[in-house]
Amino acid sequence: MASLLAKQGQEMLVSWDNRKTRTKIKVKSCVIGGKGLLLIAGPCAVESEDVMKETAFKVRGSGALMLRGGAFKPRTSPYSFQGLGKKGLEILAKVGEEMNMPVVTEVMDSEDIELVADYADILQVGARNMHNFALLRKLGNCARPVILKRGLSATIEEWLLAAEYILAAGNPQVILCERGIRSAEPWTRNTLDLSAVAMARELSHLPVLVDPSHGTGVRSLVTPMAKAAIAAGADGLMVEVHPHPEKALSDGEQSLTPKGFSAMMKELEPVARAVGRRIR
Amino acid sequence: MASLLAKQGQEMLVSWDNRKTRTKIKVKSCVIGGKGLLLIAGPCAVESEDVMKETAFKVRGSGALMLRGGAFKPRTSPYSFQGLGKKGLEILAKVGEEMNMPVVTEVMDSEDIELVADYADILQVGARNMHNFALLRKLGNCARPVILKRGLSATIEEWLLAAEYILAAGNPQVILCERGIRSAEPWTRNTLDLSAVAMARELSHLPVLVDPSHGTGVRSLVTPMAKAAIAAGADGLMVEVHPHPEKALSDGEQSLTPKGFSAMMKELEPVARAVGRRIR
Amino acid sequence: MASLLAKQGQEMLVSWDNRKTRTKIKVKSCVIGGKGLLLIAGPCAVESEDVMKETAFKVRGSGALMLRGGAFKPRTSPYSFQGLGKKGLEILAKVGEEMNMPVVTEVMDSEDIELVADYADILQVGARNMHNFALLRKLGNCARPVILKRGLSATIEEWLLAAEYILAAGNPQVILCERGIRSAEPWTRNTLDLSAVAMARELSHLPVLVDPSHGTGVRSLVTPMAKAAIAAGADGLMVEVHPHPEKALSDGEQSLTPKGFSAMMKELEPVARAVGRRIR
Amino acid sequence: MASLLAKQGQEMLVSWDNRKTRTKIKVKSCVIGGKGLLLIAGPCAVESEDVMKETAFKVRGSGALMLRGGAFKPRTSPYSFQGLGKKGLEILAKVGEEMNMPVVTEVMDSEDIELVADYADILQVGARNMHNFALLRKLGNCARPVILKRGLSATIEEWLLAAEYILAAGNPQVILCERGIRSAEPWTRNTLDLSAVAMARELSHLPVLVDPSHGTGVRSLVTPMAKAAIAAGADGLMVEVHPHPEKALSDGEQSLTPKGFSAMMKELEPVARAVGRRIR
Repeated sequence: MASLLAKQGQEMLVSWDNRKTRTKIKVKSCVIGGKGLLLIAGPCAVESEDVMKETAFKVRGSGALMLRGGAFKPRTSPYSFQGLGKKGLEILAKVGEEMNMPVVTEVMDSEDIELVADYADILQVGARNMHNFALLRKLGNCARPVILKRGLSATIEEWLLAAEYILAAGNPQVILCERGIRSAEPWTRNTLDLSAVAMARELSHLPVLVDPSHGTGVRSLVTPMAKAAIAAGADGLMVEVHPHPEKALSDGEQSLTPKGFSAMMKELEPVARAVGRRIR
Repeated sequence: MASLLAKQGQEMLVSWDNRKTRTKIKVKSCVIGGKGLLLIAGPCAVESEDVMKETAFKVRGSGALMLRGGAFKPRTSPYSFQGLGKKGLEILAKVGEEMNMPVVTEVMDSEDIELVADYADILQVGARNMHNFALLRKLGNCARPVILKRGLSATIEEWLLAAEYILAAGNPQVILCERGIRSAEPWTRNTLDLSAVAMARELSHLPVLVDPSHGTGVRSLVTPMAKAAIAAGADGLMVEVHPHPEKALSDGEQSLTPKGFSAMMKELEPVARAVGRRIR
Repeated sequence: MASLLAKQGQEMLVSWDNRKTRTKIKVKSCVIGGKGLLLIAGPCAVESEDVMKETAFKVRGSGALMLRGGAFKPRTSPYSFQGLGKKGLEILAKVGEEMNMPVVTEVMDSEDIELVADYADILQVGARNMHNFALLRKLGNCARPVILKRGLSATIEEWLLAAEYILAAGNPQVILCERGIRSAEPWTRNTLDLSAVAMARELSHLPVLVDPSHGTGVRSLVTPMAKAAIAAGADGLMVEVHPHPEKALSDGEQSLTPKGFSAMMKELEPVARAVGRRIR
Repeated sequence: MASLLAKQGQEMLVSWDNRKTRTKIKVKSCVIGGKGLLLIAGPCAVESEDVMKETAFKVRGSGALMLRGGAFKPRTSPYSFQGLGKKGLEILAKVGEEMNMPVVTEVMDSEDIELVADYADILQVGARNMHNFALLRKLGNCARPVILKRGLSATIEEWLLAAEYILAAGNPQVILCERGIRSAEPWTRNTLDLSAVAMARELSHLPVLVDPSHGTGVRSLVTPMAKAAIAAGADGLMVEVHPHPEKALSDGEQSLTPKGFSAMMKELEPVARAVGRRIR
């Protein structure tokens, strides 16, 4: 299988050529890619300081290490809620600081990289921008780690080569994130492809996260798929949590409540130990 | 989510309506759908008594409870090896008896049901026949349990309704088996959809197996996906094992060696325990 | 592109090896695969003699040469209308004879081949049975031409090899039929793949039909896709027509009315002429 | 079907609400969306002035009205040829002016819009950027018409809503372009979805082009699919032509030669007439 990337006819920075150990990325006191699993939690979008605080306080209590929340939201319709923008970044950064949690948020445009990097500890490239090569190249000049989500129907090769764009441009701190691919199955939002997690970890030294919330789009499937992801070798999870999912401005039907998140964490612990990892 | 099946406008035998406990299927000393996981192993096709015996002896030693092997093989080309037919059934049954392992094999045609049922403990419907409704209906009159693989691109709804065909015709002993769906990803043979396992178990009382061999088509992915399947809630696994995969008449590249199977079983044990199950 | 089939490492009966001209299949006064296009029309299922007669009378008047109607229906749910069975075959054959139109109907089980062949001029293998190799092999011993629909997610190679099963077993009268493949697009029932029509005709000497009714699932798309199919080189069309689509027992939303069929035929004529074909 | 867009719960600028006639876009002497079909041709990438001139001269002679060529190329690997950038724009503009052909080229980054608009008559959003909402929004402030390609696995709804982003931001000059979607079919690069063309024209007043080159990835399929596209109602085509496809820096295997383009144009003419359109 090692030959899959080799056929690029070029030494690949994402591959194991010239490397012996998995990339570890340190963000404040968190280490990504080590024995400990990275748990990132938070609402789909930053909606208000109150919601953010309540969520952060509770998920931190259950073991989440980082906080997520979108300030710029990629929405299918121009008339849907597009995120709070700069105001959202300010809220996210403020709550993260108060809670002592590094924060992750999406950057959607190459012109916004500097702005987002001023507030966020990790910049996220969403599935819809995985093939936005201009954005990838400019993130190669950014000092922040980047979470690179797999594209809506991207092949594993395309995903790894998208990461290669960032590495080749100078930023070695890339974290892959599987979030499901499009299929003809209507009962799930996407088809979470955990074999891509195992394969990415076999072909590349980069850490790999899984987002079971977007990966399924169904609340009751988040916990089983979170356990499956850890068992398949994922280095962490990115999970949507909202104190009142029924009132969420986006993605409510796939968000866990803080209580649900806490229950999931309890189920994850023995699975993590079973594969030689730990939750915190 | 319970409403997904309810919209059929009819009480469904596969659903939890009127049921409180998961279906348990007893085959000789094995129980499917209980706390113990069902491990089925064996070569893709029955090739010879020697290969069958060697495989059976070794996988039983590692904890496999049942033996698999195809006598009738669904091959894309009419010029590929089509299986040994009746001779293959005889070998499979003989080795199963000697090793005290129930045997599973595929039935491809409604005219062969009686013949196959004479030799096999469980009849398997392959992915390519999941929509062969005549076959399903006739299996409803068969006294043997049926493993129903999900079709190449079948939706979860279609899969459950294919099971309903068998139940409605009188045979309640159906075991679902997820084996991957078609996608645009070329590096895996299929995309193993573990969310379908979690969802099928939530919507239906039928036990659900996973086939990580066909589900990935890549030997090195079988073990991580087997662990993920158990973590996601699968009631067992169906794994291709061949003593000499490089000489196998079919599916060599996805078959584990007996040694690889043994190693997989050791890794599965703690994961099974972590989710409250046991391997044997 | 000729090499695509050559890689089978075997001379293929479906390929142009050893052939110079396209297969022509004669059914009563109709010729399939010649300059004239084959127009097959009729309701999804045979529902009653009255509906069948009314449809036949009208579509014949608009230029349809053959009559279609399902007696055995492959339905996702066991509780949906399954077709009239033998009674349906009788009605279809009777109306076909009265109207002097050869009839086409689906065979779903290898045990039914003889029965269906007693009534139908052409036997159809539905998309859900394209991989039912036992059925294909037995149709190789049948004296009737076979329409082989492409499987729900079958590749072009698999489709041609399914035809090869029939040819290799002795029946050279196979007509391919593209009817759309599964995709993630929810606004159409399937994604009609007209490039498969052009490619199948380039790689094989077998005639190729298109079914724009199942291929789109949307009435208003049937006519534009019928025109596109002819322009892409299709040798004919299979179209669902029902005198009262809103009362049809199945597939009403994709059925044309006889009036709609007549209007479509008028639009098809200049397109057929533009590519050197004729409608009748 | 009109209700498909209506469910957005908002009047949509792309829909027929408040409109009676199809949008016509005038670029120099060309009109897009009228009776005449728009034929855009040229190499995948601008490689040199010589290649560009030779191509332009020949395709214009065969009836192409506009010239295409990529200066910024979205390539899967960072190590593949990325286009000539500004130099490519200069060549394209110069050749277009000399040949009196408006030019079309891709813009990949919101920061490049002004630059590209300085040289190009129409800006193209590639499939990989269809979901780059920041880019779409900024193109809403651009005075140039925009060709919006359908995303790799975008639904028709997502495609129309991506167009809505541009219209809602102030630019009504949007031209849709179907270029194939991802599927599990390995013998074509993409699956060209002509039903999406018919549906987009039914739901929206925007003109719709088809790119049969990317849509199939196979030279011999370009002409049949071009004919099918016109028959399905497309308002024009975008075709890759290279004087020496075997030496092309990208996409050689799907490029027509100028001679092949000329032959295609001759075949298109009667099809265009058959559906009430004309080529020039």
